[in-house]
Amino acid sequence: MNSFGRLFRVSVYGESHGNSIGVVVDGCPAGLFLSEKDFETDLRRRKSGAKGTTPRIEFDIPHFMSGFFNNTTTGAPINIQFENSNTRSVDYLELRDLPRPGHADFVAMRKFGGFEDYRGSGHFSGRLTLGLVTAGVIAKALLGEINITARLIEAGGMTDIEKAVDKAIEENESIGGIVECRVSNLPVGLGEPFFDSVESLISHIIFAIPAIKAIEFGSGFQAAKMIGSEHNDNIINIDGKTETNHAGGINGGITNGNDIVFRVAVKPTSSTSQPQKTLNFKTEEMEDLVVEGRHDKCIALRVPPVVEGAVAIVLADLMMMEDKIKRIYIQDDE
Amino acid sequence: MNSFGRLFRVSVYGESHGNSIGVVVDGCPAGLFLSEKDFETDLRRRKSGAKGTTPRIEFDIPHFMSGFFNNTTTGAPINIQFENSNTRSVDYLELRDLPRPGHADFVAMRKFGGFEDYRGSGHFSGRLTLGLVTAGVIAKALLGEINITARLIEAGGMTDIEKAVDKAIEENESIGGIVECRVSNLPVGLGEPFFDSVESLISHIIFAIPAIKAIEFGSGFQAAKMIGSEHNDNIINIDGKTETNHAGGINGGITNGNDIVFRVAVKPTSSTSQPQKTLNFKTEEMEDLVVEGRHDKCIALRVPPVVEGAVAIVLADLMMMEDKIKRIYIQDDE
Amino acid sequence: MNSFGRLFRVSVYGESHGNSIGVVVDGCPAGLFLSEKDFETDLRRRKSGAKGTTPRIEFDIPHFMSGFFNNTTTGAPINIQFENSNTRSVDYLELRDLPRPGHADFVAMRKFGGFEDYRGSGHFSGRLTLGLVTAGVIAKALLGEINITARLIEAGGMTDIEKAVDKAIEENESIGGIVECRVSNLPVGLGEPFFDSVESLISHIIFAIPAIKAIEFGSGFQAAKMIGSEHNDNIINIDGKTETNHAGGINGGITNGNDIVFRVAVKPTSSTSQPQKTLNFKTEEMEDLVVEGRHDKCIALRVPPVVEGAVAIVLADLMMMEDKIKRIYIQDDE
Amino acid sequence: MNSFGRLFRVSVYGESHGNSIGVVVDGCPAGLFLSEKDFETDLRRRKSGAKGTTPRIEFDIPHFMSGFFNNTTTGAPINIQFENSNTRSVDYLELRDLPRPGHADFVAMRKFGGFEDYRGSGHFSGRLTLGLVTAGVIAKALLGEINITARLIEAGGMTDIEKAVDKAIEENESIGGIVECRVSNLPVGLGEPFFDSVESLISHIIFAIPAIKAIEFGSGFQAAKMIGSEHNDNIINIDGKTETNHAGGINGGITNGNDIVFRVAVKPTSSTSQPQKTLNFKTEEMEDLVVEGRHDKCIALRVPPVVEGAVAIVLADLMMMEDKIKRIYIQDDE
Repeated sequence: MNSFGRLFRVSVYGESHGNSIGVVVDGCPAGLFLSEKDFETDLRRRKSGAKGTTPRIEFDIPHFMSGFFNNTTTGAPINIQFENSNTRSVDYLELRDLPRPGHADFVAMRKFGGFEDYRGSGHFSGRLTLGLVTAGVIAKALLGEINITARLIEAGGMTDIEKAVDKAIEENESIGGIVECRVSNLPVGLGEPFFDSVESLISHIIFAIPAIKAIEFGSGFQAAKMIGSEHNDNIINIDGKTETNHAGGINGGITNGNDIVFRVAVKPTSSTSQPQKTLNFKTEEMEDLVVEGRHDKCIALRVPPVVEGAVAIVLADLMMMEDKIKRIYIQDDE
Repeated sequence: MNSFGRLFRVSVYGESHGNSIGVVVDGCPAGLFLSEKDFETDLRRRKSGAKGTTPRIEFDIPHFMSGFFNNTTTGAPINIQFENSNTRSVDYLELRDLPRPGHADFVAMRKFGGFEDYRGSGHFSGRLTLGLVTAGVIAKALLGEINITARLIEAGGMTDIEKAVDKAIEENESIGGIVECRVSNLPVGLGEPFFDSVESLISHIIFAIPAIKAIEFGSGFQAAKMIGSEHNDNIINIDGKTETNHAGGINGGITNGNDIVFRVAVKPTSSTSQPQKTLNFKTEEMEDLVVEGRHDKCIALRVPPVVEGAVAIVLADLMMMEDKIKRIYIQDDE
Repeated sequence: MNSFGRLFRVSVYGESHGNSIGVVVDGCPAGLFLSEKDFETDLRRRKSGAKGTTPRIEFDIPHFMSGFFNNTTTGAPINIQFENSNTRSVDYLELRDLPRPGHADFVAMRKFGGFEDYRGSGHFSGRLTLGLVTAGVIAKALLGEINITARLIEAGGMTDIEKAVDKAIEENESIGGIVECRVSNLPVGLGEPFFDSVESLISHIIFAIPAIKAIEFGSGFQAAKMIGSEHNDNIINIDGKTETNHAGGINGGITNGNDIVFRVAVKPTSSTSQPQKTLNFKTEEMEDLVVEGRHDKCIALRVPPVVEGAVAIVLADLMMMEDKIKRIYIQDDE
Repeated sequence: MNSFGRLFRVSVYGESHGNSIGVVVDGCPAGLFLSEKDFETDLRRRKSGAKGTTPRIEFDIPHFMSGFFNNTTTGAPINIQFENSNTRSVDYLELRDLPRPGHADFVAMRKFGGFEDYRGSGHFSGRLTLGLVTAGVIAKALLGEINITARLIEAGGMTDIEKAVDKAIEENESIGGIVECRVSNLPVGLGEPFFDSVESLISHIIFAIPAIKAIEFGSGFQAAKMIGSEHNDNIINIDGKTETNHAGGINGGITNGNDIVFRVAVKPTSSTSQPQKTLNFKTEEMEDLVVEGRHDKCIALRVPPVVEGAVAIVLADLMMMEDKIKRIYIQDDE
């Protein structure tokens, strides 16, 4: 349930305020050299601390617990673990009777009978996305020339992101945003017929990221308003290059060699400093709730490296399915 | 690859112009009574023949090949098969060097080395969705009081669907549309943490349906423009009923007891009667192509029962995961 | 549940006296040429009719329902179906209250609430092994030079199999046997660490064959009586060739390049013409039961091609895992 | 690949001389109380130190890294980790050109291109079985009244185990053994038709245990020499109790309510203090090899708790499949 992938298989574990959170990657080819340093950029991009993000700062140092020998993957399962040091669980204790609107508090309590670790959203925390970013770094290394870039193209309904964040801080409100991802240098033929279409696999993993509520490939919702001869992308060379890219690089669920392009909608952070109405499950009466704790004004700011990691995981798996990534990693310069 | 689900597991097989197409359902509880008649309504809704749909008419009679005894499921794998009778493969033979824009012709040729059954899009054909509808009928029966309704809410950019279809016919063009699906009477707690969120599973299977290019849950893309206190749904009773439903019935990937609501974008049918430019892979020159054959002007018209079936499959699986559907089916009136 | 394999995935369906039985193979590479004739030898070896086997004769003609085009695999799911023509279900109707000793009657009734198709053991019938043999023929074709040979080396405790069968017929009793399987020309390195060891995967599928009750690799049970320096196989060349083969070609769960050797025990056919005692579940009293119907005196006679097929399925999957079988099949002579 | 199970899913990671080894259990019901103390007995039984076992002593203290809150399972993935403290890797460094007979050295080098962690057999080490024992403790707790007992019934060909061990020490040789496992208080109906028979699942996981080379259920190999009326177990009451238990508690792959009984053969420890011949892969000449390091004279002594854990994992999974273990654990006394 907490695993994804067929050959390059990623599993996450951990809770926001527990001992640790981490990720296990099973099926990674042997022979891939990676040092702690290789994880730095993407982990830093996901990290909080910038304007609009939560003041909870974790060091996020990846500990290689297994699957590496001399900084090289061995072919055995990789376990990379992160400590949770900067926890202030006391914030959450009093919320047990007051499920926060927009959060998983209520559904978690019902699904797990009250046994869930509720501190800081526990296993439902966005902190779990560390696993996606970490596995994504490994996947990106395997993908070689394939380039994945995600960026925030809209926040709070505005394209000037900085202005949007300033406004949110000023109004003491949380805002959402739209992240666009583009993948280039792809081979033709990734993806499997029917259930394991590229769109199916990407959307599956993308919706594992907390706060994502929508995804569209290529022209997406706009496609519904187009006519066929307008939407169809004319093929103009024998590698499958098309004149336009309304399909977002995917036909019949299979990559067509053009860039994969998709956009996702990130809802506003559920934790907002504004008072909200919610039910007190003990008194069964409505109550004003102000969610304390340290929160992101615009969680969407931190989503791009997570989206990139998620897509890299899907593509590494599909590349292995097609024998384009071997079980023993071959360095580029060989 | 052509299978989906953990406990209620659906596999599809077949090609548009091959011997047969069908679906295998493994893990369906024993004891569910179903006659051929129970499949009629949804199969008819998916069928062509109405204005705006292809003139290729298949009888679409479900043949129960295994898993039924005295019209009752046995607990063994169910194989339901459909014959392909009304095939005119000759239409497709000459297209081998001219991959149709928007279709899977090019990617299929590259992925399967030219060995694919190319007639009528072969295994990539929308005809394969018969399997989703068929398995969906079984799933719906298991779901009892849970109600799933999908309908076309927009076609060709218009909300008056009939007018949109008339216009498409008049202009001899294909159009897309938007299908909205609503699921009511759901228990709290369906869905698994992280990778198997309800959104992940629904989007995974939805993108198996040819021509779908986008999906949004609840407020979807609109959520990206909202602020937190506006998007959050206030809980107003102890069953988790919320005042609004911006979340589309799902928090943290888990059903919250409110209606699941999502919308999907259907691109315009790739086959259009308008001339298009494409590459002749033999001559390596651009050529005018008019796609002959019998096609849907608005494939979106036939999508609602497919979406319903797909969602029913996901929910039946999740209900079994939660022990809410037993391995021996219990009739309502018992 | 009725599926096996990761990349070369085999699913079975059907019942002994239902409409059909068959097998779906998902993930088979495209481009493999196979005619009905290629299935003949193994299907005939599995067939009844010889001395010691049941007089129920089925034609066992494979119908290619999907996944083939011009007698060549397309990369789409292959469905091969067999008709059940020669059924005499009346034999089984009166047994509902008298579960036959050694059969699955009792457990099936309890597991499936009486909804199971009980005729001729239904889905539990040995007839389902047709699927293993059929998928095995495809797998063997993919395996090329890898040679799999299973043979009955003992029946009724005797190595002279013919004599054993004569004795069983004379005494009107059923007998068991031991089948030995040997696989040669294997590459080093098949199998996955820990849970997916070669022994794990082979034994998993082998125990799907009805009537198998034991398996041993290499020296097997005899190994438990040996000392280390005696059991260890000395490596004598750089391809890993060993002096002896006590390990049965597998170290640490991975093929070592020497022949895989294993033996399985087949219990005597549960249906015997001798009167047996069993409980009448209606009267709750013990009763004499003589199992009518047409049965094998020595089902072990028909097991070798099934064992071969089962092993071929495992190996084809592992060869695909190691990129040694490509997704587009390459003919030997190319 | 390093995972097993459908609903109660167990994954192992780690290497003998790496940072840590551990186990992730995904899908464990919420609400199960377990303290470190509950793991003590089985971990101690598996531990070395007794006569005939290796002098390498690890503390084997389970660290709960995730999935527990107030010593109770939360429903989120459980990660239990063990440190490797007592490592003497220097012993193994010089063996790189001299693959030890009977070990996975050669196959690992070929499969993973020399990138594997070779110290102390790395990921192939018997130390990985800690994960099975640990997950097994959790599984046993879930199984409640179901009782699993494995014991060594033969070592070095003798039933007096102590004498066998003394002899092995005296002769400075390693020996094998036979472990018998019995499971009582089982419900009827566990196991799935065809591929997921109880024998299939048990043998699959049992062969993940290093050094196991054979398994037999009930009468096992002896069954091959019996006649039908002798082997068949007469049913004597309506709960399915049988007079004899030649079937080992399983018919048609499904539990019949009688005890599951099986035996496994453990080969002699591959590391023996006797000099052996092996190929030097550098010089390509045969060489005498004496395997230094600390080893078990009779690894079979430590196998019983591992077998129990492995079987408990299978049964917990099957019990969840049958809704007999709920997703929220219900304490016995409630």
